[in-house]
Amino acid sequence: MRIVVDAMGSDDHPGPDVAGAVQAARSFGDAIILVGDQRRIEAELKAHDTAGLAIEVRHAAEAIGMKDSPSAAARDKRESSMHVGLALVRAGEADAFVSAGNTGAILAVATLRQTGLGRIPGVLRPAMGVVFPIESKPMLIDNGANADAKPEYLLQFGQMGSIYVEHMLGIARPRVALISNGEEEGKGNQLVKEAIPLLAASGLNYVGNIEPKEFVAGAAEVGVIDGFAGNIMMKTAEAVAGYMSDTIRKYLMAGTLTKIGGALARPAFRRVRDQLNPDEVGGAPLLGVNGVVIIAHGRSNAYAIRQAIGQARRVSERGIVAAIAERLAR
Amino acid sequence: MRIVVDAMGSDDHPGPDVAGAVQAARSFGDAIILVGDQRRIEAELKAHDTAGLAIEVRHAAEAIGMKDSPSAAARDKRESSMHVGLALVRAGEADAFVSAGNTGAILAVATLRQTGLGRIPGVLRPAMGVVFPIESKPMLIDNGANADAKPEYLLQFGQMGSIYVEHMLGIARPRVALISNGEEEGKGNQLVKEAIPLLAASGLNYVGNIEPKEFVAGAAEVGVIDGFAGNIMMKTAEAVAGYMSDTIRKYLMAGTLTKIGGALARPAFRRVRDQLNPDEVGGAPLLGVNGVVIIAHGRSNAYAIRQAIGQARRVSERGIVAAIAERLAR
Repeated sequence: MRIVVDAMGSDDHPGPDVAGAVQAARSFGDAIILVGDQRRIEAELKAHDTAGLAIEVRHAAEAIGMKDSPSAAARDKRESSMHVGLALVRAGEADAFVSAGNTGAILAVATLRQTGLGRIPGVLRPAMGVVFPIESKPMLIDNGANADAKPEYLLQFGQMGSIYVEHMLGIARPRVALISNGEEEGKGNQLVKEAIPLLAASGLNYVGNIEPKEFVAGAAEVGVIDGFAGNIMMKTAEAVAGYMSDTIRKYLMAGTLTKIGGALARPAFRRVRDQLNPDEVGGAPLLGVNGVVIIAHGRSNAYAIRQAIGQARRVSERGIVAAIAERLAR
Repeated sequence: MRIVVDAMGSDDHPGPDVAGAVQAARSFGDAIILVGDQRRIEAELKAHDTAGLAIEVRHAAEAIGMKDSPSAAARDKRESSMHVGLALVRAGEADAFVSAGNTGAILAVATLRQTGLGRIPGVLRPAMGVVFPIESKPMLIDNGANADAKPEYLLQFGQMGSIYVEHMLGIARPRVALISNGEEEGKGNQLVKEAIPLLAASGLNYVGNIEPKEFVAGAAEVGVIDGFAGNIMMKTAEAVAGYMSDTIRKYLMAGTLTKIGGALARPAFRRVRDQLNPDEVGGAPLLGVNGVVIIAHGRSNAYAIRQAIGQARRVSERGIVAAIAERLAR
């Protein structure tokens, strides 16, 4: 297995990206190709013991930043680490691409037909799946690749999400639900209302439209939603979880007894934090492009990058791209 | 002040609705008109000491349930507690209407031109504002009255939300933001992109588009969003807050020391719970209809109904409807 890691991806690149790649090379034994500014990567690598690890460096003269316009960067920064890295996957020189960089740019560069991976034949729009950090670990798809969606896109999001969960978690017929503003008939926006009959007739294990509450309670393994509302749902979940943790901490520190109570209760808080920790999950798979792409959080630390690389190798091993190609060609 | 309370509204009606009305009549000294099944209301009232309270009962032969189709119920159930109650406000016999019933039906009946309140002249679509239960208490609008929105609706949501916050919280020029899937230029769905120039040119204190994280951090007093994504955002916040509380409790109970810690920390947890408690807030104002309407949660208990009535009287006192009429007629 050879995995390309964008060394210019994370907010603090190339530190966490390189350190995560070293951890992954050691843990999983895979070959890692670090792509980006060669000098900076090599300087960073010196801080690590890489003896016996299969780590290569591939220079890329440009880098795409978080503030770059995705479409402009995809068009103009042809020497970026994303372009160079994805071209390696395209050429069959590597099995997967991992980046913690600008999500829109990863999507745009990966979708390029001439130099990126392009779409899997039959796929209308690639989508970003994301594991919702609750115990049952359901997938929410789309998490923002398509701010505007059509009913047929939602159908395909459900199909791709179902395949992912089936192959990655070994669940035979994952329950697929549309996320909506109510479960009653007649609820939903126009998009959801038009997607319902498509999903109902799809042969998927479609369980209807559900509210966020039911999704959080584990009512489906795959939650289908347009990329705008899906991104807002995911970010709201992260924001509220963070707000609650901060508020609990503040109130615990406000009194002597509660402070002692908080100290005794720390192992429980740590379990909650670990469970909700997006770093554990790895990254978000970009489904529908013709190759394995994992998008890690911009805030990723080395451990999160390592986990994203681990996820990339599993997605590659389990043949998700081929399975999507087979289903959507039907 | 005379306030109409829909006695057939909450999930457990008429118990909480009647009890909340009694509490409000005692606390605020207002006249309350309970509308619904006269026999059931009177039976319920017997459980309370109502001596000296200005509580009237007005019979309504029908009730609209949570599963009723809003448009069908608005058209066909002309004798419902919602129709009868809103007609009292329309006729000037009461100052405000409070219901914990079917949200879509309240909206549909309230908007009826002939028998309901109709829209304030100039208002394209009434919207539901909701207080987001964090410390800074910002308003999210729309919380689901319009699953499909247009850019001009979002502009008006911002205007109505701004007026509400200005008059209710005494904030001179509330910061108004569009909730989006990113702050960078080019982010947002088509709707958001088209709403940006409208809000920027509106004369409102428009602070740009923000992500849920910034909204939760208090970056705006008014968050503008379409009713579909807004409802999902609000319900995700509630679901995640509930999930975290449950998970923390579960892990606290799993060990002896953490159990003791949790007991000592209880006052801190209670403060968090109270702060996040939607019952404290009251209800969601339906803005843009030609009269005061407060929509309480279906799960409301007596206290939540009391709070919603308290909110209805403040909205009435502070002339929100007149202020919206003045602004949108310009």
